[in-house]
Amino acid sequence: MVVDEHYVIRIPDNLPLDACASLLYAGITTYSPLRYFGLDKPGMHVGVVGLGGLGHAAVKFAKALGVKVTVISTSPGKKKEAVERLGADSFLVSHDPDQMQVAMGTMDGIIDTVSASHPVLPLIGLLKSHGKLILVGAAEKPLELPVFPLLMRRKIVAGSGIGGIKETQAMIDFASKQNITSDIEVIPMNYVNTAMERLVKADVRYRFVIDIGNTLKAAYNLLALWFLNLSFLFKVCLLLLDKNIHGFYSLVVLNLIYLVLSLLGTQNFNSILYLNLNK
Amino acid sequence: MVVDEHYVIRIPDNLPLDACASLLYAGITTYSPLRYFGLDKPGMHVGVVGLGGLGHAAVKFAKALGVKVTVISTSPGKKKEAVERLGADSFLVSHDPDQMQVAMGTMDGIIDTVSASHPVLPLIGLLKSHGKLILVGAAEKPLELPVFPLLMRRKIVAGSGIGGIKETQAMIDFASKQNITSDIEVIPMNYVNTAMERLVKADVRYRFVIDIGNTLKAAYNLLALWFLNLSFLFKVCLLLLDKNIHGFYSLVVLNLIYLVLSLLGTQNFNSILYLNLNK
Repeated sequence: MVVDEHYVIRIPDNLPLDACASLLYAGITTYSPLRYFGLDKPGMHVGVVGLGGLGHAAVKFAKALGVKVTVISTSPGKKKEAVERLGADSFLVSHDPDQMQVAMGTMDGIIDTVSASHPVLPLIGLLKSHGKLILVGAAEKPLELPVFPLLMRRKIVAGSGIGGIKETQAMIDFASKQNITSDIEVIPMNYVNTAMERLVKADVRYRFVIDIGNTLKAAYNLLALWFLNLSFLFKVCLLLLDKNIHGFYSLVVLNLIYLVLSLLGTQNFNSILYLNLNK
Repeated sequence: MVVDEHYVIRIPDNLPLDACASLLYAGITTYSPLRYFGLDKPGMHVGVVGLGGLGHAAVKFAKALGVKVTVISTSPGKKKEAVERLGADSFLVSHDPDQMQVAMGTMDGIIDTVSASHPVLPLIGLLKSHGKLILVGAAEKPLELPVFPLLMRRKIVAGSGIGGIKETQAMIDFASKQNITSDIEVIPMNYVNTAMERLVKADVRYRFVIDIGNTLKAAYNLLALWFLNLSFLFKVCLLLLDKNIHGFYSLVVLNLIYLVLSLLGTQNFNSILYLNLNK
């Protein structure tokens, strides 16, 4: 594979490739606005709306930056996960008016990862003066933006999507230093449809990673098996026509060995197959 | 009048009080976001939506900051005013798709002074990456905010309303240095209802200023006249009861002089009246 050097990200050794993969999307999408909008000063208070792939990355990066993090979610059941496992400082149920009222005007910024339509007025209320609501979820329908609450305390609603290569490298280096990876579930290619169904139900913590390398190897092996079987049948016919029973048995044994090797998915299988076909 | 020193703005001598009055609203409301959002660097390109009281102040301040200014308006008729009189660099008719298309992605920021409901998507389109749409008009209904166009080029929609005392003083000092005043029409208090009707028709360039000082003086004189007439009638009754015809005529003449003086609105009228009543 040939890649322009300007588009290559160096992955430090301590980051596993699979758990690092989604940092290149969820990581940079949340790290970038935290940095760009200055929500990266220790002691600041940042809200994270939605605890999914983007949300859990936002919590990890914000915490690593020394920021106080409050997860805002519609699901009270996510509190334990947010606070105990991901290390958020507090948890707000967005449809609980009492909890929301107490938190009014306390946040320097909010990373809103929700891509479904949702009201932003309560979120704007959570912000301090000059607070920043950053939308990183791509809602399809336009949001209803109340103007007066923005005007009165000079608040900002902004959008942010991924980040440039330089910033992505900075994010990966920061993740390496802080030992941040995404929480993932590695799946083979043929699990994709099931994965899609589970995604709809938000049944993944927090990203599926498709193991393309092994999937391709398996697919290639499958293809090789087809060729093997074709050559096997062809040779069987030839040997039976010659009444070469010794040759017939040795071919069967040899091909059984190839079969076992291919099922084990050894990397040398392809070259063995190649030798066999050209013998 | 007693004012806490923290809330006093010093008006330099070269700024006339009447033409400076609306700077304390329209001036600071447009100057503040230009400064706060960094739209004050010479060579930048800033759009100003709506050419009213706020809009004309935005144009004046942005030009004084060395920024390239484009006025965006629904009224093609305002082009001459915007460009020739206020010194805007260019003019866009917001409902002309060709003009808008050419200007796409050219602006560092936009000061949107329109308080009526209006679509913001075309305005977001005018912004460069990282561009800032600043709403200073308080639309009553929520705006429809498309999320994806914000996300793709990390754009900001913000609100801003007036500014603090320190910033207001800085604005006045800047206005003094740059000889910026509001374009105004000075009216007496009793013109207010007509002024309101004209405001609805946007028939003012660009702010009415009510001359409270002179209005109050006239009102006070009217009140004094009532007292004068009451004392006149009372003394006439006394003199007629005494059959003092000489005193009666001299009182009539004296009061006619007071009447003329009061109609002329001299500042000494009140003290003359006071002497008369206590004679």
